[in-house]
Amino acid sequence: MSSTQTAPGWLSPQDIGEVRERVPIVYVEAIPARVDHLGRLERVGLLLRQRPDGTISRALVSGRVLYGETLREALWRNLAKDLGPEASPQLPPNPAPFTVAEYFPADGLGTGYTDPRQHAVALAYIVAVEGECTPAEDTLDLAWLSPHEAVTPAVSAEMTGGQDRLVRLALAAAGCLP
Amino acid sequence: MSSTQTAPGWLSPQDIGEVRERVPIVYVEAIPARVDHLGRLERVGLLLRQRPDGTISRALVSGRVLYGETLREALWRNLAKDLGPEASPQLPPNPAPFTVAEYFPADGLGTGYTDPRQHAVALAYIVAVEGECTPAEDTLDLAWLSPHEAVTPAVSAEMTGGQDRLVRLALAAAGCLP
Amino acid sequence: MSSTQTAPGWLSPQDIGEVRERVPIVYVEAIPARVDHLGRLERVGLLLRQRPDGTISRALVSGRVLYGETLREALWRNLAKDLGPEASPQLPPNPAPFTVAEYFPADGLGTGYTDPRQHAVALAYIVAVEGECTPAEDTLDLAWLSPHEAVTPAVSAEMTGGQDRLVRLALAAAGCLP
Amino acid sequence: MSSTQTAPGWLSPQDIGEVRERVPIVYVEAIPARVDHLGRLERVGLLLRQRPDGTISRALVSGRVLYGETLREALWRNLAKDLGPEASPQLPPNPAPFTVAEYFPADGLGTGYTDPRQHAVALAYIVAVEGECTPAEDTLDLAWLSPHEAVTPAVSAEMTGGQDRLVRLALAAAGCLP
Repeated sequence: MSSTQTAPGWLSPQDIGEVRERVPIVYVEAIPARVDHLGRLERVGLLLRQRPDGTISRALVSGRVLYGETLREALWRNLAKDLGPEASPQLPPNPAPFTVAEYFPADGLGTGYTDPRQHAVALAYIVAVEGECTPAEDTLDLAWLSPHEAVTPAVSAEMTGGQDRLVRLALAAAGCLP
Repeated sequence: MSSTQTAPGWLSPQDIGEVRERVPIVYVEAIPARVDHLGRLERVGLLLRQRPDGTISRALVSGRVLYGETLREALWRNLAKDLGPEASPQLPPNPAPFTVAEYFPADGLGTGYTDPRQHAVALAYIVAVEGECTPAEDTLDLAWLSPHEAVTPAVSAEMTGGQDRLVRLALAAAGCLP
Repeated sequence: MSSTQTAPGWLSPQDIGEVRERVPIVYVEAIPARVDHLGRLERVGLLLRQRPDGTISRALVSGRVLYGETLREALWRNLAKDLGPEASPQLPPNPAPFTVAEYFPADGLGTGYTDPRQHAVALAYIVAVEGECTPAEDTLDLAWLSPHEAVTPAVSAEMTGGQDRLVRLALAAAGCLP
Repeated sequence: MSSTQTAPGWLSPQDIGEVRERVPIVYVEAIPARVDHLGRLERVGLLLRQRPDGTISRALVSGRVLYGETLREALWRNLAKDLGPEASPQLPPNPAPFTVAEYFPADGLGTGYTDPRQHAVALAYIVAVEGECTPAEDTLDLAWLSPHEAVTPAVSAEMTGGQDRLVRLALAAAGCLP
């Protein structure tokens, strides 16, 4: 039974491969945040993954919007997928993206975001997360970093495709760019 | 002992009166919202007050930003004042106002917002509220209305100064303008 | 020679049809505006088209973002296509969409936007237009309406898919919702 | 004849001094931008002023919102004051601030913006400027810098009160943070 039968919106690797060569793909990206009682950002969560060569890479919560799915549902689903079912993300009533990141396979277009797989248009959000987070299987860990730690050159160097820029933009939007 | 001694930022009625004739006053306004687990707005809270003539008026959470106070602190303080200490408002990490409302004593300037007391510049937010709300003493009640109910002509007629417009704008920003 | 050879990003009707059944499609939508020297919106432009049954329909400037194209380029291209080469649209340095409209084939998802052809995620902008506008061939005319005229029931009834809502949201964002 | 008689909204130095000790003051700030035909930011304008000690300082267009004046009027007036009558700023139909900067006399509040004179709440905008700019008398020059130049440590060091942060935020909002 194919994945498209069990989960509407999902595509086989071949199908999504064909689509990716033809149109921009819609993504949502989220920066999980621990906040104090006034909503002030204290820490941001970055996923830790191991690359085939053994080095560590860091990533945001990120995923494709499926056919028939609202942005809000896609945001929730991807947060639950990467942070576990108890994360309890607090999606706001009016979730305006803090930026729209345009990823292109080659960096010639000057947006600063690259993705070798595709042209993606990603709506990026900061989401307060209250519950316990249990990273999914393909993730080593979730690291909660202070704004200062999150923009150090060492951390930025472990991120790819311009996601370190997204972290800086998120911190700027939250009023705590170091 | 004057009020400014006990609470920095507070002004005597005479002092604030003098200031109001000279400069625009900074306000925060909040539309409390009950949301579902995806953050979708289900109901908005409107304060019910009795006018001297016995009629009911409805109002948003609203208040001046004090000298030395951040917008976030002012938002929290005014929510706690009007909704009680258990309201547990969820201020987002990046609280962008859904609009900036400019109130003028006379309506000649076409902004649609009037306040006979002053020229006010109000940053307006939608704030999810999770806890129990106990309206303060000068408030009769807090009514939780569906988006559809909140924009009926009857409800709009009970609001003053253009706050019915703010409710419509908030619902629009939350994606649920009927 | 196929259309994809002559114009990168363009797809044959069959190809785009297949893609539309699989993923959300990225769109840009624009509400052209005439503004005064302070940038205040005076009139909005709505395209007039004749339906097969002879009735008039009104529409916004709207179009797909092509593979390899930035949002800004797509916005410019679609404005030039619908308003002519002399329209001289003034894209701002930081073009934040005033809303993101999610169109679904069926209206079951409650977003208020429908498109029988596809699931589309449309970033919607208000764009000041300074030059002379000459609507393209498949367009009867471009009507410049005052904010008051643009939201009359008669005009709203001539729009489809929820674009009358987009007009109201745009006017709200520009501070001139009647 | 007092200044308030000749220009409504203006206050004598003594009056504004008294007000500044009592309430937050509303400001608008603008980063002038040269843009290409697609609206892409090419250069930002920074005012050059000479300090009493002979060193150079750089500043944004900035000014108080007067009593009875809309934000849009204040933005226009301050741009005309600092850039001259031919600058031809292009205020957008929906001028959302890219940030709200909160200035405090002491930096204890963590906003990153300081102003020894006052507590100010500043709505900050990027404004495309098409015409010829002729800086006012108390200004040495207006320097148009590339995004890369505008964030060099040397330039940042010539700005005060956190305005170098505002420049970085503006470039981020315009999608061209180096």
